[in-house]
Amino acid sequence: MGGDFGPYVPVPASLQALASNPHLHLLLVGDPDKITSLLTTADYALRARLQIIPAESVIASDDSPSKAIRASRGTSMHIALEQVKEGLAQACISAGNTGALMGLAKLLLKPLDGIDRPALMTVLPHQQHGKTVVLDLGANVDSDGAMLVQFAIMGAVMAEEVLAITRPRVALLNIGQEETKGLISIRDASAKLCETPEINYIGYLEGKDLLTGKTDVLVCDGFVGNVTLKTMEGVVRMFLSLLKLQDEDKKTVWWLRVLGRVLQMRLAKKLGHLNPDHYNGACLLGLRGTVIKSHGAANERAFAVAIQQAEQAVRRQVPERIAARLQAVLPKSD
Amino acid sequence: MGGDFGPYVPVPASLQALASNPHLHLLLVGDPDKITSLLTTADYALRARLQIIPAESVIASDDSPSKAIRASRGTSMHIALEQVKEGLAQACISAGNTGALMGLAKLLLKPLDGIDRPALMTVLPHQQHGKTVVLDLGANVDSDGAMLVQFAIMGAVMAEEVLAITRPRVALLNIGQEETKGLISIRDASAKLCETPEINYIGYLEGKDLLTGKTDVLVCDGFVGNVTLKTMEGVVRMFLSLLKLQDEDKKTVWWLRVLGRVLQMRLAKKLGHLNPDHYNGACLLGLRGTVIKSHGAANERAFAVAIQQAEQAVRRQVPERIAARLQAVLPKSD
Repeated sequence: MGGDFGPYVPVPASLQALASNPHLHLLLVGDPDKITSLLTTADYALRARLQIIPAESVIASDDSPSKAIRASRGTSMHIALEQVKEGLAQACISAGNTGALMGLAKLLLKPLDGIDRPALMTVLPHQQHGKTVVLDLGANVDSDGAMLVQFAIMGAVMAEEVLAITRPRVALLNIGQEETKGLISIRDASAKLCETPEINYIGYLEGKDLLTGKTDVLVCDGFVGNVTLKTMEGVVRMFLSLLKLQDEDKKTVWWLRVLGRVLQMRLAKKLGHLNPDHYNGACLLGLRGTVIKSHGAANERAFAVAIQQAEQAVRRQVPERIAARLQAVLPKSD
Repeated sequence: MGGDFGPYVPVPASLQALASNPHLHLLLVGDPDKITSLLTTADYALRARLQIIPAESVIASDDSPSKAIRASRGTSMHIALEQVKEGLAQACISAGNTGALMGLAKLLLKPLDGIDRPALMTVLPHQQHGKTVVLDLGANVDSDGAMLVQFAIMGAVMAEEVLAITRPRVALLNIGQEETKGLISIRDASAKLCETPEINYIGYLEGKDLLTGKTDVLVCDGFVGNVTLKTMEGVVRMFLSLLKLQDEDKKTVWWLRVLGRVLQMRLAKKLGHLNPDHYNGACLLGLRGTVIKSHGAANERAFAVAIQQAEQAVRRQVPERIAARLQAVLPKSD
């Protein structure tokens, strides 16, 4: 019910996800009338794997998270997370109020032992056609060294399980590569990671290396991660839109314009894997359950990607594996 | 003498700058032998507007700034800044150790009244073909609310003087647009700016708006600014390099490849204003003198742009105008 488009994106996206994955079952939590009206033309076989769970109200995107959480009983977000808590669902996906989702998820699903605060993680495509796990993207505004180490451990598990990378490289995002640079929290985390042989820590990386594939896991605090990711998305979207606008130049002869369009399509295909729509869905890591935050402005295709991410996290048993790794690593490093 | 290429970039860049600006005089501070050997083929008329100031040593890029500053007597950076302090030069340009340059500049040139710490500023091109003043880009690792307000005032003066914008819009970089979001320092600065009628404060902007032209001045702390700018540059460079690599596809027939290259050149021209080389040179604002930091890896063209920036800051009397504005604004807002 949340996000910029209410149920109008998630419902058709759900049908899309069900069509592409025959093992998937989805519970749609929200206003039954609105949801049903969007399912009238749905294929019967798909409809059979969909269940509607009624919810009276919705948390608005611009509600203050703390206020929204206090008054959340009966909202679609609260009920959806309760499904996970009760074991009726294995994951919750929402495009709604990010702060409320993170707060409520922490309250209802509880952090894993050894985790102070959960972190938002995404998997970014990079230039070498591989992928990088990046966290925290804004679950926390500031993070101390111990929290950054927890993020590093969770990120390493994600890279192993979801990207199938053995001994993934882990780096901290900083403003230079020298050991003396940056915030105290980062230098503290760096010192701790150097003493953690279970993590393949490679040191600091700068913002310019976000997409170069020099690391498999990039760790930063939530403020920096959020600004960095949004900056990157802004630049990528600008470039993709500039490529599209090429043919507004009407002075060009028609056949050159047609050829231009062909070449643009090739280029767009080549750059397509960098389109933010293709990697929608940030995973809230560190909880006893799977929670995926979709971009509020996600379109149908992007929301379907977020559903895929949830399915993948459940199949790979991400929360269980993170819990096991924390148990193995954290006591020793304390 | 600093930067990735020692004198091999700044010396030819100086000749380029002298050729394009007949009013410019340059002092080259460093190893006279090395510099002279790079001037053997220089035009006599240009050579006449160049003076070599000998310096025995160089601060290395990887020296710790505090150590480098203590042992800086006799280095090219120290002597160059002294020229400005003594009134023998009106600006200092360096591609050397950023931390040392900022520390030494503050020590020798002193901050203006009302400035706690200077800030690194650059002018970024945006999508609407205008420009945005962005600061701090890394002069300080963390900044409190009062410092962010000082940055906002300096940025507004830059937008007025250098970009000729009347009543420039000023925004704070944050992780959301709601008043309750973000770091305490940012919320504190926001409250202060709301009570400063001399500044046309428009609120928070997110990373995705860095290049959209929604503001004329974007203020952030040095850590976030540095990571954001480097992220943006990394993405832009990646796109520009992907455009170049297009024609590696040898399966295409030759005439399509030739046409493709023509279209690429057009596209590169269209995107060229976003190339980081074209806006090289961050200005250290808040000092009693003009100091420009060139990218350490700047090429000849980019270093010449940094020289242009210095000339422009001097001509527009940036330090004097910032001092005047601080006097007008700060006492009232205290």
